[in-house]
Amino acid sequence: MRVIAIGAQGDIGRAACAELADRHEVITAGRSSGDIQVDITDRASIDEMYRKTGKVDAVVATLGDVHFGALSDFTEDQFMLGLTNKVMGQINVVLGGLNTVSDGGSFTLTSGVLDRDPIRQGTGAATANGALGGFVKGAAIEMPRGMRINVVSPGLLDVSVSRYGSFFPGHEPVSSRRVGLAYAKSVEGALTGQVIIVE
Amino acid sequence: MRVIAIGAQGDIGRAACAELADRHEVITAGRSSGDIQVDITDRASIDEMYRKTGKVDAVVATLGDVHFGALSDFTEDQFMLGLTNKVMGQINVVLGGLNTVSDGGSFTLTSGVLDRDPIRQGTGAATANGALGGFVKGAAIEMPRGMRINVVSPGLLDVSVSRYGSFFPGHEPVSSRRVGLAYAKSVEGALTGQVIIVE
Repeated sequence: MRVIAIGAQGDIGRAACAELADRHEVITAGRSSGDIQVDITDRASIDEMYRKTGKVDAVVATLGDVHFGALSDFTEDQFMLGLTNKVMGQINVVLGGLNTVSDGGSFTLTSGVLDRDPIRQGTGAATANGALGGFVKGAAIEMPRGMRINVVSPGLLDVSVSRYGSFFPGHEPVSSRRVGLAYAKSVEGALTGQVIIVE
Repeated sequence: MRVIAIGAQGDIGRAACAELADRHEVITAGRSSGDIQVDITDRASIDEMYRKTGKVDAVVATLGDVHFGALSDFTEDQFMLGLTNKVMGQINVVLGGLNTVSDGGSFTLTSGVLDRDPIRQGTGAATANGALGGFVKGAAIEMPRGMRINVVSPGLLDVSVSRYGSFFPGHEPVSSRRVGLAYAKSVEGALTGQVIIVE
């Protein structure tokens, strides 16, 4: 398959690409790295990305910003960052790709553990993750031409522990290899409308 | 208790108030009706609402707009309506009320069935509902002064069938009385961080 991996340079994106690259042609995209530069908050930038790739069989999105901060300090703008960037950005990747992905192709989005196993300062992420779970559940039944859509919800990755581990007390890290498998399950399998949990 | 019911004139708001009004002092608020007018997309309007109520023991929010439309026709602005109005609006009600709700008080938000039992044209609602579920899960562990937060997720109400039933094929309507009970469970009970499903 031809697969476009958006956010390929992040920890999760690397895990997905490590699993997929052996068996598929992977085109990488990212804000400032990869084969194609794209800003997922700008629909025109997404449309331009799909013009450059042409037809693809699978789209994997492993990016999106959220703010971390104590609930009592959270501002509306800080909440909206997660809603406009991680949520609307990934939804834009789907809306923009509906005509570019081949019949029976798939979208695989990325949420995270914090809407089922919350941490302090994680309300923005929990909100965004929940939104993406709801989105794929709703979108799956309306996808045209046999296309599928899922979201992978990984726990804290082993490779991310050195940077973020102190925010996740007691969370057992998940191996990057297992996270990569979840993307293979979505891309190569037949699931749709699922939150694929890796924990 | 003193309870503020925001969106009290909607079908769900009426169900909540019918259950709560016998035992509590209920102050009603809404866009254009109720004791106090409020625009939940405007934080200043929410702050003004809380200045008018003074201390309350419980906040019930049963409002928020989303767009309904086929996935293939959805625009970014139409998705953002749900994220800014139903999601950010209800989150604003919480952020604005953190200092006005009494010790041990509660917030009860409202999502809906479409992120677990989707319908055509319902992706915007599914996304918003999922976001609110994630928000209360994340927020519950950071609420100050023993405050609690839940979200009620009702199926299609009996009283709403005449207007919306044709969009919900095969959905078994839920009685308004049972929906009202869910709000009593959240306001008077001890739950926190829960999606209280009524179906």
